[in-house]
Amino acid sequence: MISERLKLTISYDGASFSGWQSQANGNTIQDLMEGAFRQICGTPIRVHGSGRTDAGVHALAQTAHADVPLRAWPTQRWLAALNGSLPPKVRVTRCTTVKKTFHARFSAKGKVYRYRIWNAPVLPPFEHGRAWHVAAPLSVTDIAGHANTFLGTHDFAEFAANRGQPIVDTVRTIRAAKVRCTGSCIAIEFDGDGFLYKMVRLMVGAVVRTALGKEPVAQLRARLKLQGTKSARFVAPAEGLYLVRVRY
Amino acid sequence: MISERLKLTISYDGASFSGWQSQANGNTIQDLMEGAFRQICGTPIRVHGSGRTDAGVHALAQTAHADVPLRAWPTQRWLAALNGSLPPKVRVTRCTTVKKTFHARFSAKGKVYRYRIWNAPVLPPFEHGRAWHVAAPLSVTDIAGHANTFLGTHDFAEFAANRGQPIVDTVRTIRAAKVRCTGSCIAIEFDGDGFLYKMVRLMVGAVVRTALGKEPVAQLRARLKLQGTKSARFVAPAEGLYLVRVRY
Repeated sequence: MISERLKLTISYDGASFSGWQSQANGNTIQDLMEGAFRQICGTPIRVHGSGRTDAGVHALAQTAHADVPLRAWPTQRWLAALNGSLPPKVRVTRCTTVKKTFHARFSAKGKVYRYRIWNAPVLPPFEHGRAWHVAAPLSVTDIAGHANTFLGTHDFAEFAANRGQPIVDTVRTIRAAKVRCTGSCIAIEFDGDGFLYKMVRLMVGAVVRTALGKEPVAQLRARLKLQGTKSARFVAPAEGLYLVRVRY
Repeated sequence: MISERLKLTISYDGASFSGWQSQANGNTIQDLMEGAFRQICGTPIRVHGSGRTDAGVHALAQTAHADVPLRAWPTQRWLAALNGSLPPKVRVTRCTTVKKTFHARFSAKGKVYRYRIWNAPVLPPFEHGRAWHVAAPLSVTDIAGHANTFLGTHDFAEFAANRGQPIVDTVRTIRAAKVRCTGSCIAIEFDGDGFLYKMVRLMVGAVVRTALGKEPVAQLRARLKLQGTKSARFVAPAEGLYLVRVRY
């Protein structure tokens, strides 16, 4: 089959789905994307994402690629066809043809994740499933200070969960940590060369617990020196996490 | 029963509910509120809203009142008890005790409604159910100009649906019309002394159709002079409408 490779930018509200990666129940973004392609192309098409996102985790711009039978369709036609077959909580926002050397996962140079915390006594109904509700008052200055602890290159073994198989290389580099406060929303953004499984949620969990005085500040720094000791850890809930973009 | 009157401010994401007003199926905000009170007080309590909102319509601050057995609870306790029993898409955001002369509906001096239009080729997944998706480009200047047509006191018979019974008085005053554009979102806000059934959605439907060139500008003005002729009308979808606040 003569094929062309499509690079897709995909946005989704993770609340209704079982995450990115294909599963038996089929309620995943990858399954929905592959279903849409099968409907359009009449043949099974594999969609490769830049990486997994867990159930409940959102994406503003997940990136994926797929090899499709050559049609030379204009971008707008692919967008309309895919979105026409996808549920409204999953949208393809951009589509371009790329060289066969492009790979959504292996060509990625880094990623940006954002974590949203709603810091007020009551979580507005419109934020349900879209932010972590922390009712106890947080100091944004403290949050920003603690988030900066992760800047640079560290062994993040203490900030990784494993999926059954042992993780070999747990050294990662955080290029930027940005904290923004808008009304009751505190957003923490990490730009890194790569992220381990549940890494952002473990980092945010530690940052918030430290800001709440539930963990000493020194412990946060100490953890970046530990390797695989797996101290008691707190995973911030999935609903606050957004994959903002993948850098290539 | 010695009772006190509570004034409640309620916010809800209308997407999951059948509107405000009590119904046999029970999936309405009023039913949920009355269910929460029954659970807390152990006796049926009637909750009176400032007015109905239709299925799919949202509220940032609906107002209601209820007479409850005297407990002299602090506000925070009522908030916690009610929110503890309500689903997360309905939140009581404020609760105060008021005089028995206060009535959520009859004491209202006016209301503010906002209508959100998402004007871009693709509707983001996070806006699904929360805005009207209009893909064709709109001029914000035109939208603002047409929205201003409604300013002042008019007979809004042409911008009202009836619920079976004839509407006697269809004269209303729009005190302010405000249009704000944030990225792809165009928000139209109307502040009025009162609104007829489906009035805002009929006004927005006419504004958008006029801005798209589907109706002549002169027709919009002419309609405010007609009385009950019921020309062809377009009702903007429920999901873009928000009750912003009730003025007392």
